[in-house]
Amino acid sequence: MNTETIRSRDNALLKQLRRLANDPAAGRELGLVWLEGEHLCRALLARGQLPTVLLRAESAPHWDTAWSLPPSVRRVALADSLLAGVSGLGSSAPVGFLWPLPAAAACQPGRPTVLLDRLQDPGNVGSILRSAAALGIEQVLALKGTAALWAPKVLRAGMGAHFGLRLVEGLHPDDLAGLDLPLLATSSHQGQWLHQAALPWPCAWLFGHEGQGVSPALLAAASHTLRIAQPGGEESLNVAAAAAICLHASAVQRLG
Amino acid sequence: MNTETIRSRDNALLKQLRRLANDPAAGRELGLVWLEGEHLCRALLARGQLPTVLLRAESAPHWDTAWSLPPSVRRVALADSLLAGVSGLGSSAPVGFLWPLPAAAACQPGRPTVLLDRLQDPGNVGSILRSAAALGIEQVLALKGTAALWAPKVLRAGMGAHFGLRLVEGLHPDDLAGLDLPLLATSSHQGQWLHQAALPWPCAWLFGHEGQGVSPALLAAASHTLRIAQPGGEESLNVAAAAAICLHASAVQRLG
Repeated sequence: MNTETIRSRDNALLKQLRRLANDPAAGRELGLVWLEGEHLCRALLARGQLPTVLLRAESAPHWDTAWSLPPSVRRVALADSLLAGVSGLGSSAPVGFLWPLPAAAACQPGRPTVLLDRLQDPGNVGSILRSAAALGIEQVLALKGTAALWAPKVLRAGMGAHFGLRLVEGLHPDDLAGLDLPLLATSSHQGQWLHQAALPWPCAWLFGHEGQGVSPALLAAASHTLRIAQPGGEESLNVAAAAAICLHASAVQRLG
Repeated sequence: MNTETIRSRDNALLKQLRRLANDPAAGRELGLVWLEGEHLCRALLARGQLPTVLLRAESAPHWDTAWSLPPSVRRVALADSLLAGVSGLGSSAPVGFLWPLPAAAACQPGRPTVLLDRLQDPGNVGSILRSAAALGIEQVLALKGTAALWAPKVLRAGMGAHFGLRLVEGLHPDDLAGLDLPLLATSSHQGQWLHQAALPWPCAWLFGHEGQGVSPALLAAASHTLRIAQPGGEESLNVAAAAAICLHASAVQRLG
């Protein structure tokens, strides 16, 4: 097993990494995902997937053998200062994988779905992916204008949920025509109370832009509008918090 | 009404702002909160509170008169580039308030409570404050080691929830002795299913460190351990997502 060592800022692989770390759209362009930190790497392996490159800090050689990866996986040691430059986690995560981004999937009709309408915040998007995976959703569809699903911050907040979900992004509302699912939206001021409603399953839960909410056209297409009880008054919920509440309500209703 | 204009990087007020923007602990030290952006400013005024200073971009003079503040409020225009330097929101928020940090409150026994045990991420803390305020919690108690509640990132994620809650921070577990509330904790692998449990009210919901969870001593003191159903498999939930689910469950159970 050979380990290459990179100590030059101008190395081609390092340049790729830098783009992946800094540009949310680079993953799709390069066809690569930068999975940083032990947790994400372990989550990938748990799905039976292999990286193409194992990258670790020069000072942390034990990672070369930590997971019994086959010899076909390229091992690269990066000078610690260079790794810090492509890290969103800092020194706590001296290891990461490069993994080929899965080919763009197609929407699957009739499967439990979350639909994201122009969500901006990568932390919110990642948290919703994580809740979706935990609560029995199979696919997440992101309309054009939503944060890039494979961006490092979304991956970090997703904590491995990406690997268990069918992810489709860059969609236009017209692409949803064949989805064949009741569309559930939340509203802060109208609709049936979520905790009293009979929720269809499978369904597609719709979550919208942090400031503007779901677009009026999509809202009009919803078969159910649900309202989350907020006895604390006029305050609103963060969209990822609202999503967790809705997805949990769906989950426990079908558990009976 | 007079407006001062600041164009020097060395201005004393600007130096204070810079500390408040960059050091999460500065708020408590200076006894000041930096509320950035229209939404937070409006939320403060909605509670009948007044700022001591209105700060706005030099290019946005309409903010001087936007809220009919009394003349006693000091008006300061900051050169746009200087305001950008103390902004977490960028050019989208050319206005903010300086507001005197409320004196440290004492725990109130018997009131609906959220208890934070060493939560690290300011976004999570802010999101939980927001859910707490919306879902009928009255006070949030933060144990030593939790992110500073009045830090800019927590304020931003809280979206005004801070002004509707009794906030107590820097607590030691011993300080909870007189709380006189059943303590509810979540667990990923044991306890009663949340959606089947009879939940006491008022109560104190306990949420712990993102990686380590609630400390064993506190967990042992909990009167109820609840488990959130996760039919998606072994994935876990983000702590703010779990908090939203638990607080919503409490809220709808007492709504009946």
